[in-house]
Amino acid sequence: MSDPANPPVIDLNADLGEGFGRWQLTDDDALLSVVTSANVACGFHAGDPATMRRVCELAAERGVVIGAQVSYRDLAGFGRRAMEVPPEELSAEITYQIGALDVFARAAGTRVRYVKPHGALYNRCVHDEEQAAAVIDGIRAAGGGLPVLGLPGSRLHEAARRAGLPVVGEAFADRAYTDEGTLVPRREPGAVVPDADEVVKRALGMARDRTVTSRDGRRVAIAARSLCLHGDTPGAADLARRVRSELATAGVRIRSFA
Amino acid sequence: MSDPANPPVIDLNADLGEGFGRWQLTDDDALLSVVTSANVACGFHAGDPATMRRVCELAAERGVVIGAQVSYRDLAGFGRRAMEVPPEELSAEITYQIGALDVFARAAGTRVRYVKPHGALYNRCVHDEEQAAAVIDGIRAAGGGLPVLGLPGSRLHEAARRAGLPVVGEAFADRAYTDEGTLVPRREPGAVVPDADEVVKRALGMARDRTVTSRDGRRVAIAARSLCLHGDTPGAADLARRVRSELATAGVRIRSFA
Amino acid sequence: MSDPANPPVIDLNADLGEGFGRWQLTDDDALLSVVTSANVACGFHAGDPATMRRVCELAAERGVVIGAQVSYRDLAGFGRRAMEVPPEELSAEITYQIGALDVFARAAGTRVRYVKPHGALYNRCVHDEEQAAAVIDGIRAAGGGLPVLGLPGSRLHEAARRAGLPVVGEAFADRAYTDEGTLVPRREPGAVVPDADEVVKRALGMARDRTVTSRDGRRVAIAARSLCLHGDTPGAADLARRVRSELATAGVRIRSFA
Amino acid sequence: MSDPANPPVIDLNADLGEGFGRWQLTDDDALLSVVTSANVACGFHAGDPATMRRVCELAAERGVVIGAQVSYRDLAGFGRRAMEVPPEELSAEITYQIGALDVFARAAGTRVRYVKPHGALYNRCVHDEEQAAAVIDGIRAAGGGLPVLGLPGSRLHEAARRAGLPVVGEAFADRAYTDEGTLVPRREPGAVVPDADEVVKRALGMARDRTVTSRDGRRVAIAARSLCLHGDTPGAADLARRVRSELATAGVRIRSFA
Repeated sequence: MSDPANPPVIDLNADLGEGFGRWQLTDDDALLSVVTSANVACGFHAGDPATMRRVCELAAERGVVIGAQVSYRDLAGFGRRAMEVPPEELSAEITYQIGALDVFARAAGTRVRYVKPHGALYNRCVHDEEQAAAVIDGIRAAGGGLPVLGLPGSRLHEAARRAGLPVVGEAFADRAYTDEGTLVPRREPGAVVPDADEVVKRALGMARDRTVTSRDGRRVAIAARSLCLHGDTPGAADLARRVRSELATAGVRIRSFA
Repeated sequence: MSDPANPPVIDLNADLGEGFGRWQLTDDDALLSVVTSANVACGFHAGDPATMRRVCELAAERGVVIGAQVSYRDLAGFGRRAMEVPPEELSAEITYQIGALDVFARAAGTRVRYVKPHGALYNRCVHDEEQAAAVIDGIRAAGGGLPVLGLPGSRLHEAARRAGLPVVGEAFADRAYTDEGTLVPRREPGAVVPDADEVVKRALGMARDRTVTSRDGRRVAIAARSLCLHGDTPGAADLARRVRSELATAGVRIRSFA
Repeated sequence: MSDPANPPVIDLNADLGEGFGRWQLTDDDALLSVVTSANVACGFHAGDPATMRRVCELAAERGVVIGAQVSYRDLAGFGRRAMEVPPEELSAEITYQIGALDVFARAAGTRVRYVKPHGALYNRCVHDEEQAAAVIDGIRAAGGGLPVLGLPGSRLHEAARRAGLPVVGEAFADRAYTDEGTLVPRREPGAVVPDADEVVKRALGMARDRTVTSRDGRRVAIAARSLCLHGDTPGAADLARRVRSELATAGVRIRSFA
Repeated sequence: MSDPANPPVIDLNADLGEGFGRWQLTDDDALLSVVTSANVACGFHAGDPATMRRVCELAAERGVVIGAQVSYRDLAGFGRRAMEVPPEELSAEITYQIGALDVFARAAGTRVRYVKPHGALYNRCVHDEEQAAAVIDGIRAAGGGLPVLGLPGSRLHEAARRAGLPVVGEAFADRAYTDEGTLVPRREPGAVVPDADEVVKRALGMARDRTVTSRDGRRVAIAARSLCLHGDTPGAADLARRVRSELATAGVRIRSFA
């Protein structure tokens, strides 16, 4: 149970600004009224400059913290194609994206406050030590000692710790977990939780009790300071609002980690 | 004649970092030993992140001032295709490029200290009030009150002045001038001065006496605090070195305007 | 009135395949059940290869004629930014796009049967003789003597005629016309007809009677063998279906021009 | 020894057209006087449309056979970054590139006569069955039963055979071989043969005797109908000319495999 004098705290993050020019994808306006952390696309998998500026302005207005959602350079594949990028190129690409977003955050009166890799880069940096190190090098070069939002236990977080960067673990209320507390891979059956009620219930458990029921029915601990809400599916904004509302009702304090 | 107690001062600028990935173009290493201001490509017409990082590091090491060479988004045309970009998109594209370069300049211990449009955008902003204003908006949004390097009398400089940004005029020792002190358009015969000796002589005149001989033989005033040296032609680095050396010999002090 | 023994004939064309990777825009499946000519994006303003293949397969299955919707190279601007592309580059870019689409049309058992420029290139080629000629050069180089779908009286059609390519004029039921039978520019008030009933009525007039009522109330002749239906707005597929249905009811035969 | 009545025959191939817009890389003009097969870049790792057209015209003029050098979509990495492209996307990307090149080959009076993957895709398809199959699907869809130029024994060649496409093996005179007749990986010492005399000697052995001396001094059989000459290094054209000249002197007939 939650102690009223010392309520549980959770951050809500979502990917935003994932359109490109004429194409729109995420309902940025709606989600910026729900989340406390905005993972803003920086132009490599999505995110044209005018969209980046608009999302930063709106986020700043509403007190939503801005993070750089960095990616492989892959507009055609939306950053979902893992790439063998040499470390010295990858680190420079990460730095570039952070700088390109930060200038809009500054113009809106704030700053980029954290970094989260996107798509294939996110997945790759769970296991790949070399690429994880390159991403962290790129983040360090951008300055400011930015926290790294990612999967607890990932190579990315290990590399961040070695480099002296803060790490923030996230959990996914709409994904199944193993008994070990790791994500069930998407290619396996039951990897995604389709039912909205169930997603809300799991979000509550993750935020308040720091646990989730595994695929095999065990209660496993979840060490996450942020919940990732998906923003690119139909009904995403509605589900996000519901998660936020029920968390608040249950006495969970919703606040950015940054 | 130059007064030894108060010698003429000139800045030398050149376009640098204009490769992209596997392709190299400018002899960055050689030119960074000659110029005082480096117009560094920011990824829209040229300039991959690893090149941007390397050029910024080298420039910082040698005390060369870094400027953002902003462009239309046009890798295939090297930024030489004028584009009808809506002002709100163009300004965001300019801000994005400055931010992307500045993060590398910061990582190298310095900052972006000025902005110079490239290619078709440069030419367009000589006459086009709307695009000039959009570029200046984009520079302002990037913060820091950055000086704008460009053609004296251009719409770009007018818009910069209105916005309270410093302007720095440049001249071209290898281009012919009219009696009015404007550039002879490239499509006209004699627009480019092919002879190296003549280029050196004109550079001297521009820097020391603030004049140049027009196409029609008149001596016209040149109000330029910077000379633009071309870096992408064979022999460019040699010619640049010679210009610098003869300017120094003639008592001209070579120093960044920033 | 329409003569039952010799009914009026009209083609219906729409822009299709205008997504890119993760981003979708046009309701290709629905529109391919309505139109007789599909202007398929070729990768320069929209249209990734997998989408091009899918649209060609579906079009071939349903007997819809495939045309190459060629554009400036401008994903970020969706081909809506006019560009000063040198003629020899522009013509090659046009040829490239036609070839890239044609291979999918062939694989689906058919061919590219016509070409229609997109967006800013379409508008530019109404008035710009040099770019119109370059586009026609590019179409000619692609072989097959492809018909050119465009605005009657445009420079594009003039250049096509000079080159011996067939021309097909199109009209827009949702756009206002002047007394001279030209389009009211989009920036002027009343340029677009917002009411669906009115659009249907105008389509009927254009197809059956070859006339439209001008902005100033005059009946003006419209020499169009094709009507352009928009596919990228909400309700676009519904409106297109309605236009087709009412044309059929009125005895207009709907058939490709190719 | 070579039998004068039945001389050995070899094809010489090189990567061409690997510039992009302002950037040039390969000495296309010189190499088109040496090789019998031109692997022409198709726009995904290099190769703008105007360059593709020019190389096709020149190749056709000189009787050099045109092949499509297909790649991952990766201009920034020059196609040297392996990518996890889903098979249905990869196959469409291959088809697209072949079609885009073929239209220029047709315009020049010839056709694309074979396909060779570039860079990381080439290397990936040596071992990766799924990607090899996707590439072959893409080649098949392009029609014409095009031969596949690649490494003997590669997954790519296996997939081509299964699909009924002809395969052509190539060898590299400037690369070291193992006792098993496979290439010494580039990351190992001695992988590349730096000495021009040695390269020429090895080319002779490969073409005339179908053997090469392995890294460990054994004579191993080489089943290659084509030798790959590199075109993007200083002195590449000179070395290529020398190889061709010495092959001819030795009685080897130099002729395209297509």
